[in-house]
Formats: sequence, C-alpha cells, structure tokens
Amino acid sequence: MRYPVITIGRQHGSGGRTVAEMVAKKLDIPLYDKLLIQLIAKESGFAEEYIKDTDMRRIQSFFYGMYIDSRNLPLEDQLYIAQSKVIKEVSDKGPCVIVGRCADYVLRERTDVLHVFIHAPMEERIERVRDTYHEIEKDYKKYLTKLDKQRANYYNHYTGRKWGSSDIYDLVYSTDLGIEAVVDSIVHFAKGE
Amino acid sequence: MRYPVITIGRQHGSGGRTVAEMVAKKLDIPLYDKLLIQLIAKESGFAEEYIKDTDMRRIQSFFYGMYIDSRNLPLEDQLYIAQSKVIKEVSDKGPCVIVGRCADYVLRERTDVLHVFIHAPMEERIERVRDTYHEIEKDYKKYLTKLDKQRANYYNHYTGRKWGSSDIYDLVYSTDLGIEAVVDSIVHFAKGE
Repeated sequence: MRYPVITIGRQHGSGGRTVAEMVAKKLDIPLYDKLLIQLIAKESGFAEEYIKDTDMRRIQSFFYGMYIDSRNLPLEDQLYIAQSKVIKEVSDKGPCVIVGRCADYVLRERTDVLHVFIHAPMEERIERVRDTYHEIEKDYKKYLTKLDKQRANYYNHYTGRKWGSSDIYDLVYSTDLGIEAVVDSIVHFAKGE
Repeated sequence: MRYPVITIGRQHGSGGRTVAEMVAKKLDIPLYDKLLIQLIAKESGFAEEYIKDTDMRRIQSFFYGMYIDSRNLPLEDQLYIAQSKVIKEVSDKGPCVIVGRCADYVLRERTDVLHVFIHAPMEERIERVRDTYHEIEKDYKKYLTKLDKQRANYYNHYTGRKWGSSDIYDLVYSTDLGIEAVVDSIVHFAKGE
C-alpha cells in the first residue's frame, strides 16, 4: 500500500465518520475513532466522555497563562500530549485510519501518510445531523457553524495551522459527490493504484 | 457527463495548469486558460498582457474609494465584470475546463459544475517554477508565498470567500499524489462513473 496510514479530518455532519468507517472496512485495516478515545483514556487517565468532546471545547485561554510549570500543564494540554502519543503508537503498529484529533499534524513528518479532509454543503450537514444523528437543536446552522469554529480553534491552537485550509491535506472531498465515490477514491489513492 | 463544466483553481507552480490541460484533453472538451484571456480581451478591450496578470496584481484599495460612479469603475472592476461575463458565456455553450479567474464563484449557482483546487508542497513548486517554467527569482519561497497572497487577495476581494479554503471546492488534490493519478480522478468524478 502506498499510504498505509490515513488521517481523516471532517466537518461535523459531513459524513466524514462514515467515510472513514467504509475506507477502513474496504482496506481491512483498523479504524481509530472510538477506539482511539479508549486508548487515550487508558494513557491519560481521563474519562472517555471528557476526551470525546475535546475538539469541540473552547480553549480556555484565560486560564492558560496560569500554568507555567510544565509538570502542571492544563488538562487540555495533558490530554493533547497523551493523544499525540497514542496516535504515534497506533500508526507505528501498522496500517490504519485515524479520525480527527490533529492526527495529520502529529504525523506530518511521515511521507507514507495520506491526509484527507471531508466536508459537505450546509444543507446536507443539517439534514444528516437532524435526521440521521437525531441531534435536537433550535438553529442547526448556528449550531454547526459554532462547532466548526470550536474545532478550528482547537486545531489551530495546537498545530499553528488553519483547520480546513486546502494545503494541509493531500485530498479534500465534498460528500456531495456521493459517499461511495469518495470512499472508492480514497481507497484508490491509498493503494497507489 | 455528471459535471460538464470543471473549474480549476491552483497555486502557481503546483502543476494545476498541466492538470487542467490533461483533463480537457482526456474529456475532449475545450480548455479556457489562454483562450479565456483572448476572449476577455475581445470583450473588455484590455490588452492580453494586462489581463494575464490580473489575479497576481495587488488590489489598489487606495484608489478604490475614488470611484463611486458605477459608470466609471476602476479598471480592475471593469475587467472582473468582463471576465465574469465571458466565463458565463463559455460555460453556457457546453462542456469545458476553466482555469482560475474566480470561475468557481461566478458559476456557484450551477449544480453541474465541478470545482477543483490544486496545490503542491512548497519544495515541489519551487522545483517546477525554476526547472520547468525557467522563472528566475532570488528567493523562490518568498516569491511563491507573495504570489499566493496576491491571488488570495484578488479572489477574496471579489468573492467574499477565502481562496484555498477547503469548503469552496468539491475536490482538492496535492499533485504530490502524481499528476496522472490526479487527472484520472478528476475525469472519473466529472463523468460520474
């Protein structure tokens, strides 16, 4: 395989998680999404629920300055360090698909990692979040825009890059093109066929 | 063909122009790149040389405020209007590939247009610009970074979007993946196979 490790960043409601699942299944390699959270929980001692929402939380820049001593880092930073360690470990073990968690940045030095980003038009995201995930919100557009902003803040804070900027990724797809077609294309590039 | 019209935005030195040529050839449809400049020259009365570098010129915001009367718009704006008109006309005529010139924004309302962005790692862009295009610069990285900024300024000014931001495009590729592979993938999605 040309790219044995695949990182997938995604907008919430884009179908990126489904794409990741299908790519992992087609290539018959492990998917690190929920599994990654379990491993990070084990590594860090944090609760899975706390880890799950990390990249949707606001970075508490107010408190940030209070922690100078590296032995006493803010929880968010301790978590980032633990998750980076786990990402490196699992990707060293063998082929896999890793969803989110700045994995593209953590593995930026490796030349055999394929970095993918998945997005979708707002209307399709709203439909998916409401009708498939059954999330209940008053204003879906506002909710998704806020999540994008939080995810970007988290990513930008830890990587110094801009979340969703084209030049970070080898491949970007709108799932508007069809989930199956996107999955096949990623598999194709990963295999280097 | 699922997407008869394809717009291709690109970083200078990314190989995007070559990709566009090859896609047009494979699909046997017209390529509007140099041809577009000739048509815009005809429509606007501007010299081809002037039009060629439009998206690399700095928007003269200092002078901008001086032109209130819409009948007496700044040259840049007259040119933008002329090129938008030409883009709409050629894409109405039939299948084609259009390179740059905010074509993705001009044709944003159409659902049968595939929007693509091409980029490449900085080292590869430098190599291409120096060894293939034979452009002579003192500091290639500085030169390309400046061009990116100018192209972004131009695009952002006229579209209110962010040039190179993933969610504008249906597909984004790094030519690091191989020019042939990128071309085949675009052709595949355009055909809707």
